[in-house]
Amino acid sequence: MVRDDLLMIPGPVKLHERIIKAMSSQMISHRSRDFEEVFEYCKNAIKPLFGTSGDIAIISGSGTAGMEAAVASFSKVKKITVVDNGKFGERFAKIGARYTEVDHLRFEWGSSVDLGKVEESLANGSEAIAFVHNETSTGILNPAREIAKIARKYDALVIMDGITSVGGDEVRMDEWGIDVAVVGSQKCIGAPPGLAAVAINERAWDFYSESVPYYLDLRAYVKKAESNQTPYTPAVPLFLAFAEALRIIEEEGIENRIERHRKFARATRVWAENAGLELFPALNEHSSYSNTVTAIKMPDGIADRDLRGTLREEYGITISGGQEHLKGRIFRIGHMGNVTKRDLVATLSAIEDILLRKNAVKPALHAAMEELG
Amino acid sequence: MVRDDLLMIPGPVKLHERIIKAMSSQMISHRSRDFEEVFEYCKNAIKPLFGTSGDIAIISGSGTAGMEAAVASFSKVKKITVVDNGKFGERFAKIGARYTEVDHLRFEWGSSVDLGKVEESLANGSEAIAFVHNETSTGILNPAREIAKIARKYDALVIMDGITSVGGDEVRMDEWGIDVAVVGSQKCIGAPPGLAAVAINERAWDFYSESVPYYLDLRAYVKKAESNQTPYTPAVPLFLAFAEALRIIEEEGIENRIERHRKFARATRVWAENAGLELFPALNEHSSYSNTVTAIKMPDGIADRDLRGTLREEYGITISGGQEHLKGRIFRIGHMGNVTKRDLVATLSAIEDILLRKNAVKPALHAAMEELG
Repeated sequence: MVRDDLLMIPGPVKLHERIIKAMSSQMISHRSRDFEEVFEYCKNAIKPLFGTSGDIAIISGSGTAGMEAAVASFSKVKKITVVDNGKFGERFAKIGARYTEVDHLRFEWGSSVDLGKVEESLANGSEAIAFVHNETSTGILNPAREIAKIARKYDALVIMDGITSVGGDEVRMDEWGIDVAVVGSQKCIGAPPGLAAVAINERAWDFYSESVPYYLDLRAYVKKAESNQTPYTPAVPLFLAFAEALRIIEEEGIENRIERHRKFARATRVWAENAGLELFPALNEHSSYSNTVTAIKMPDGIADRDLRGTLREEYGITISGGQEHLKGRIFRIGHMGNVTKRDLVATLSAIEDILLRKNAVKPALHAAMEELG
Repeated sequence: MVRDDLLMIPGPVKLHERIIKAMSSQMISHRSRDFEEVFEYCKNAIKPLFGTSGDIAIISGSGTAGMEAAVASFSKVKKITVVDNGKFGERFAKIGARYTEVDHLRFEWGSSVDLGKVEESLANGSEAIAFVHNETSTGILNPAREIAKIARKYDALVIMDGITSVGGDEVRMDEWGIDVAVVGSQKCIGAPPGLAAVAINERAWDFYSESVPYYLDLRAYVKKAESNQTPYTPAVPLFLAFAEALRIIEEEGIENRIERHRKFARATRVWAENAGLELFPALNEHSSYSNTVTAIKMPDGIADRDLRGTLREEYGITISGGQEHLKGRIFRIGHMGNVTKRDLVATLSAIEDILLRKNAVKPALHAAMEELG
């Protein structure tokens, strides 16, 4: 099995050696003081990344489990507005439909959210809104602060998928008025996949519904978290890894980390533009390019396997393609988590090398390196 | 942090060094061929442990997630009978109540299931039954084959929690007529906690309900499993560990492994009886003592912390206490997974040492060692 690959996808991300070491330990009981100390550290260390002083639930499960726990636990609403401008927005709509009526605001993948339509939906009697902050399927950063502001005008509950923004970009739940937000362990936080943390503000509990799946009932997680435990057996090695990843973030400092993510994203975009490539997202006055993943249109005449296959075989670097109908139309470079300047330069160089052979780009590496400083 | 503890609880269990090594690796993409190979191996290697040729779903989540996925995915029934003679039977009832009407057959914790009552409930119009095969909270093995036989008379769907029997005791789904069964990674299989595998026979799909939580929808898992993938990002390190644990089982041979578990259980019981201790479960003609965990009544005058606290502090061995109202009334020794003869002898010796100081037992180690051979 190949073991020296470099992952440059929007999660799971490359693990820091310290995180691998933390995970590589003999099992401890999940009811022991040792585990409780690990849990307590995770619970407290993650709050500043969400920008909240609210409750924290940590579920052994993927980000999708976290999204569903958030929607289902707070589903005492007659209608929820779901903002969908990519794969994960669409997923929110599918999840929402299992619990309540969904006003499904569809925008073409890659396009920006029309805030007028958001306001219209809320004015029409939605009591909650769910949206994706950073949509990795298209490389766009949706305007969280603005969406929350509109929702608050209508007293709607605000649920945010921060799976690929928390820990890598600015998230200020309390300040922005986000009631519930979700993060996945394997994205900007840089831990292995398998945990989802959900942050919950006091106000969300007014929307609590007992018609929630037993395993995804956030009330049970929050109640147990008071004594630094989990309601069901946790994935212990993943908690050990998660704690170490959070320690690394604490050492780097969240502000520095966000600035690093932004710099890596700028360098990737500068490279793409100078190379003659086109960024995929269509921005409007409220949206931005993602700082954690860059989505680029595939140059004419280049097949997905020419670029990504060769990159993998020749360089041992894995990047992502497009999902669903975007397959073959875009490629996506993840630059989140504990990715280094070295990793990013290697990735851009390798892509440039492969596309130069096909005369599909112009040399642009120095522009990127200048941006990286 | 203490790192040299020996876990002798009914899961999570001590990890074999090979499993720790397998887990300690750089991240791979969950959409890579490498991951698919790992998934395919797990999917196929686990079937003989369930005794089935049916479908396999592997969920990133605890055993409880697997129990809920099983109940919720196949909840197209107007009533389900739930057999409850311990904590996990009770959990099945709580889960079932979120999806359909439950006929909750309560038996005192530690007592055996009355099959007459099971038949009565099914005759009264239940279309499904859920029960726990090996109830770790009380150390009893419920009569799976007999329960399934009765259920089949009434064409009811049979859902079995095999979380602490599959991989350590005899399970023959296809032969016994079990339609859906669940196992957890951290029990007899000996991997870390965080995965639940669900085995599904063809017949179960007649009971499929779309009113199932998105994350726990077994149809999505089984569909993706055809191409050796998972519907949502899997806990990759746990799959690597799970595969290695299954390789170890394959090398030992499942029949040898079951025989080892039975021998360890017999030795523990022989020790307890010779020491003058009383086993907790009250058997009837259909039940047996568990082969994966032994529950023993706490001797008079011994507090939970005297025994378990001292064992932990002096010997670095963790065993379990009683749960809920059994707290302080019983103690439980897990002897499942990759536990060795050395581990078991050390545990029984240490317990005997501590209880001898309190004049609460008679020396009985040699009887146990004779049984171990």
